[in-house]
Amino acid sequence: MYEAYWKEIGEKCDVSITIPINQSMSYFANSKSFCWFLEPKLEEQIKRVHTIVGNAVVEDRYIIVGTGSSQLILAAMYALSDRLNHPNPIDVVAATPAYSSYSEMVTFLQSGLLKWSGDARRYDKDGPYIEMITSPNNPDGTIREPVVSNHKGKGMTVHDLAYYWPQYTSITSPADQEIMLFTLSKCSGHAGSRIGWALVKDETTAKKMMNFLVLSSIGVSKESQLRAAKVLETINLSCQSDKPFEVENFFEYSYGVLAQRWNSLRDVIAKNKVFSAPKYPIHYCNFFKKFTHPCPAFVWLKCKNGVDCANLLREYKILARSGARFGSEAEYVRASMLGLDEEFDLFLERLSAIDLLDG
Amino acid sequence: MYEAYWKEIGEKCDVSITIPINQSMSYFANSKSFCWFLEPKLEEQIKRVHTIVGNAVVEDRYIIVGTGSSQLILAAMYALSDRLNHPNPIDVVAATPAYSSYSEMVTFLQSGLLKWSGDARRYDKDGPYIEMITSPNNPDGTIREPVVSNHKGKGMTVHDLAYYWPQYTSITSPADQEIMLFTLSKCSGHAGSRIGWALVKDETTAKKMMNFLVLSSIGVSKESQLRAAKVLETINLSCQSDKPFEVENFFEYSYGVLAQRWNSLRDVIAKNKVFSAPKYPIHYCNFFKKFTHPCPAFVWLKCKNGVDCANLLREYKILARSGARFGSEAEYVRASMLGLDEEFDLFLERLSAIDLLDG
Repeated sequence: MYEAYWKEIGEKCDVSITIPINQSMSYFANSKSFCWFLEPKLEEQIKRVHTIVGNAVVEDRYIIVGTGSSQLILAAMYALSDRLNHPNPIDVVAATPAYSSYSEMVTFLQSGLLKWSGDARRYDKDGPYIEMITSPNNPDGTIREPVVSNHKGKGMTVHDLAYYWPQYTSITSPADQEIMLFTLSKCSGHAGSRIGWALVKDETTAKKMMNFLVLSSIGVSKESQLRAAKVLETINLSCQSDKPFEVENFFEYSYGVLAQRWNSLRDVIAKNKVFSAPKYPIHYCNFFKKFTHPCPAFVWLKCKNGVDCANLLREYKILARSGARFGSEAEYVRASMLGLDEEFDLFLERLSAIDLLDG
Repeated sequence: MYEAYWKEIGEKCDVSITIPINQSMSYFANSKSFCWFLEPKLEEQIKRVHTIVGNAVVEDRYIIVGTGSSQLILAAMYALSDRLNHPNPIDVVAATPAYSSYSEMVTFLQSGLLKWSGDARRYDKDGPYIEMITSPNNPDGTIREPVVSNHKGKGMTVHDLAYYWPQYTSITSPADQEIMLFTLSKCSGHAGSRIGWALVKDETTAKKMMNFLVLSSIGVSKESQLRAAKVLETINLSCQSDKPFEVENFFEYSYGVLAQRWNSLRDVIAKNKVFSAPKYPIHYCNFFKKFTHPCPAFVWLKCKNGVDCANLLREYKILARSGARFGSEAEYVRASMLGLDEEFDLFLERLSAIDLLDG
């Protein structure tokens, strides 16, 4: 979806990056900085985009760049559990339906530091725990708060704010949490760059996250960081009232496309009466200075009458991830709203053709 | 050390890379490939450089790109241990002195899959184990073979061949091991790109390594891969007899600089009589078609009379990593031979000034 925007920008003005063969050869980007592998240009544009959008507090925060937010999710879990020095693995929970990778990330290395404990709403143990909070949520687009009551102060939270951008949801206030994770892939669409960043309040936690990143990959690609800086710089310039080049505000463009897609999707759903999709309350968006309709990056489709939704869709050549993968029921699926225009049109066309009598 | 070469090349011809803002936005580089996030251009140049240099067999190997070889070291350990499905953690060993990160990588996540078991030469248990083999070795530059006898076929090996390039050692035959790891940082000097690659024989192991890379970072920076492809392409072209541009053979240049530095270093050591450095047997190098003197990337300095070498050097403002960090004695240090010219000259100047009577 984003490719069309970037293609047009690329044709209008020179926003490509050129990297000489002898540039950025060192492990270090800024040896004096806390995150010594973070390119100063990227740090600057990260701060600027959050200030312009108003979606996160950046002052007095440790900014740590990662190879995608995936690496930072693991780094954050590691940092929080390791610093406790607890004899048993720390429980990690997330309210269902939850991003399916959290449980896999916690379990695949069989780490003695972490234990996947499933749905946060059912968590009732007395020990320390980490609650993963994705807001807006993947897969269902809801705005999330911690759901485990922070009993005796033993709860720790990681806020995965990958989708807290104005095209997906109303920006109601700057997020101000202990650990906040963002990723270029969901902000601008540049998934191939594998650039994520963490905003961290506590120094010890930030240091342990750095330790994780150094041991697991000795930092993050400089080339990707330089391009991410250029992408964010272009987004930031596109939001200015006096622009150096004629370009549509990136977030207005993206919100426009998504809002239209959601309208078309809701029309199809209303017509074929086989599915339902969540409805979201509207809120005032401080960035757009108006009320906006949330337009999640995924639709969390529910099939009526308990039909296995992924199976039904597969018959119509629609690939979607079953609700079961997110700890939910098989009558749900997650389908992407972010594909290319052709892909999305085909998705709607095939969805329109579904009649439950056939299914 | 390599920067001077790349700077000169960059001035002579256009070997920079330009990445349009809408390029390589997807997670995928080649959805039909086993390693679906590996850029085809990089794969091609990796195969070509190994064929030209003759340091590794690439035919019928799974090629997996990683965020530096660090990520691949962990991925390989994970893959080998996970596939065993053994009730206890698998012992990981390396002959002392060994790269200090191996033990940290094994222990920091407290993985139930792996257990650091120290010096491979002292390993005498009966269970399955993984032996890490770095050849030429970091820190001491020796050529390494497995040292644990492969009792009852329970031994698995990971060959870290980061330094198996003609500037560092004679290329005596193409390596043909189960898992071989390489990294751009040691081949060309581009450490900031965080590009490593694995050549893997076994499909199950390769699949598990892929699983590790997908869960830990959903692949590897496309920008870095594209630049790595350009760097390797330039190296490959520099090795041809008919070159498209006038440029010194990269490996001849690098070997020339390193050989000169080693000569100067040995002169200093011979004069001040405080230190000794390992002597290496000469071998016929199939790449250079002549006998070459090994020129490791590090010097493994030994201080005479049991003096703490890192402490002594610190008094003379020389930073070097103590042998203790590598599982060895404090009379040893590892010092880099790869710094900028000015840094290396200063290192020699300060080293010359050391008199043990002062120390």
